[in-house]
Amino acid sequence: MSTVSESTRTPPRSASDRPLSPTDRSTPRRHRERGRRDRDELYAVLDEALICHLGVVSGAAPIVLPTCFGRVDDVLYLHGSSGAASLRTGVGAPVCVTVTLLDGLVYARSVFSHSANYRSAVVHGNARPVTDPAEKLAALRAIVEHTTPGSWEHARQPTTKELAATGVLALDLGEASLKVRTGPPGDEDADVATGAAWAGVLPVRTTFGEPAPCPLLPAGAATPSHVTERAGA
Amino acid sequence: MSTVSESTRTPPRSASDRPLSPTDRSTPRRHRERGRRDRDELYAVLDEALICHLGVVSGAAPIVLPTCFGRVDDVLYLHGSSGAASLRTGVGAPVCVTVTLLDGLVYARSVFSHSANYRSAVVHGNARPVTDPAEKLAALRAIVEHTTPGSWEHARQPTTKELAATGVLALDLGEASLKVRTGPPGDEDADVATGAAWAGVLPVRTTFGEPAPCPLLPAGAATPSHVTERAGA
Repeated sequence: MSTVSESTRTPPRSASDRPLSPTDRSTPRRHRERGRRDRDELYAVLDEALICHLGVVSGAAPIVLPTCFGRVDDVLYLHGSSGAASLRTGVGAPVCVTVTLLDGLVYARSVFSHSANYRSAVVHGNARPVTDPAEKLAALRAIVEHTTPGSWEHARQPTTKELAATGVLALDLGEASLKVRTGPPGDEDADVATGAAWAGVLPVRTTFGEPAPCPLLPAGAATPSHVTERAGA
Repeated sequence: MSTVSESTRTPPRSASDRPLSPTDRSTPRRHRERGRRDRDELYAVLDEALICHLGVVSGAAPIVLPTCFGRVDDVLYLHGSSGAASLRTGVGAPVCVTVTLLDGLVYARSVFSHSANYRSAVVHGNARPVTDPAEKLAALRAIVEHTTPGSWEHARQPTTKELAATGVLALDLGEASLKVRTGPPGDEDADVATGAAWAGVLPVRTTFGEPAPCPLLPAGAATPSHVTERAGA
């Protein structure tokens, strides 16, 4: 049973229907052809990256620090010690979170056309401190499962004291942009014709090595599958 | 033959003698034990990393963008299109350049003690636009040779027009800090005693794949050793 107003209402859009790049500062100006507008592509880049770089302003100067993160739908969560300056500075203030996947080094026929293949997400917004206990726990779970999948159920979960010692920031993914470069170098025709130099792409990959067990583990302790499977990936 | 004043003069210090962390903001507050003070360690991290993240302030908000870089002694060089907003915003203004090498994911017995092994350099300063042609050329050479070693001599070097189209920023490495975490997780004794969870480090590595030649190369063009040797590394 629905009223007219309900039936004509725009259905709730899933997060992935939200367009990217709604503001000027999140719209790439250089190399516009590298800009992407698909939110699922944004999610894929965020989900693949192991760390992000958090930018805050302190005084009139920027501070950029690497940190782990997680995502729940259209919200990015960052955490750190509740006393960490970067987290405190970022509370309620404008922040920028950038995630970069370097996919390849582009060797061109001219040094000017040298480039890199990459996928880079830039998120702007005012970070919100997460104080609700349920959201904080969900955020930490997202961060742990993003960084070390399988660890949330395998390891001991946080105590009330540990939760209090952890600061969590939430950043809405509303104002986000994604820039992607793929493919061979874009050399000038004259340089291609000359044919004097090699050109191509050297792929760059992030891989996992063999797990190094903690020396304090009991002798013969087996490495669990959520770690070994990742190492083999 | 030397005068007294010469023989008692303090010898010129090499750049690597400059201490790190001379200011409050470049001194790590959290996990002080991870702070390093050796300038050669800073150089090693900068030289190993393929990209950096440049932070600038635009309005009151931070912008963080990935970019390539190079180093000459105690100066970091960044480049981009001379019209790029991030470079223009960074000219003469406070910037922060952060370089992060992720070395491992640290699985602990508690999710609270999960961590990452990393080496992260943070450089603060006012960026100086490089306008002197000789310094600009040397800076570009440093960036190219840092990112794609061997390319400067192998590929066509920049024309006057290309040089004009390239903006270069210089950032002194005077105010820089280096933070390093290594080793196994730092679990609580009680969690170690319980022995319920696996703990250890999953190494993270950046590797190069097989070079993908540009489709426009002549058939049978050999891939030069400065590329193949890197791929095999």
